[in-house]
Amino acid sequence: MRQIHRLGTHLLIELAGCEAEFLNNEEQVSEALLQAAVEAKATILSSYFHKFHPQGVSGVVVIAESHLSIHTWPELEYAAIDIFTCGDRVMPFVALRYILKKFEHDRYQTVEIGRGYPKANATNKFELVASG
Amino acid sequence: MRQIHRLGTHLLIELAGCEAEFLNNEEQVSEALLQAAVEAKATILSSYFHKFHPQGVSGVVVIAESHLSIHTWPELEYAAIDIFTCGDRVMPFVALRYILKKFEHDRYQTVEIGRGYPKANATNKFELVASG
Repeated sequence: MRQIHRLGTHLLIELAGCEAEFLNNEEQVSEALLQAAVEAKATILSSYFHKFHPQGVSGVVVIAESHLSIHTWPELEYAAIDIFTCGDRVMPFVALRYILKKFEHDRYQTVEIGRGYPKANATNKFELVASG
Repeated sequence: MRQIHRLGTHLLIELAGCEAEFLNNEEQVSEALLQAAVEAKATILSSYFHKFHPQGVSGVVVIAESHLSIHTWPELEYAAIDIFTCGDRVMPFVALRYILKKFEHDRYQTVEIGRGYPKANATNKFELVASG
């Protein structure tokens, strides 16, 4: 357990066995990530998506409450998605449920990390967790 | 230990006791995050920064190898920084060292998460780690 004053929730989502065509479609991927932000009741400030050639999409949605991001590997049927929200008003787990429904997948692994500032008596610390 | 084929490294950095004025300066914050990407030898695709009023800066740098992000709370002298890189060419720990040097701070905590796709025999899994 880290010694932090928690301010936010960060969900790191690994999705496998996704449909390659979906993961390679910039429009569908961006719509899904933007809608995830809407589902969470986040305030969208900006978004940017990039289509790689021959394959893959990267994108971020900056929200007033932090950000969402996605990086896809269609050739591996894999997507790495982040949902990082601060405050009590937005609902990161609603966004997570939407993502799991929207991106058809065989399996997933999700890690939740509390974000916040180390307490005054905390020591500097580097921790390797969830290495895989 | 998660059952994943590791493709990338994600560093989640909590910095406390930073200089409030620096954290509230969009230009300085954006320069620092962009330079961190350069130090890592990443290929920058796009960046976006937003200044909150009365205080705080959020920003992302999308790189060909994933992304960097920052959210600052000058009133708490706190910044949450992410460095997510894929592949063997870029050097996330060089970016981390640059960040720790550039952002004066009293203390920090960093978590490293391996990113990648769950193995074929992996079960769906939700894990709460590094909660704080």
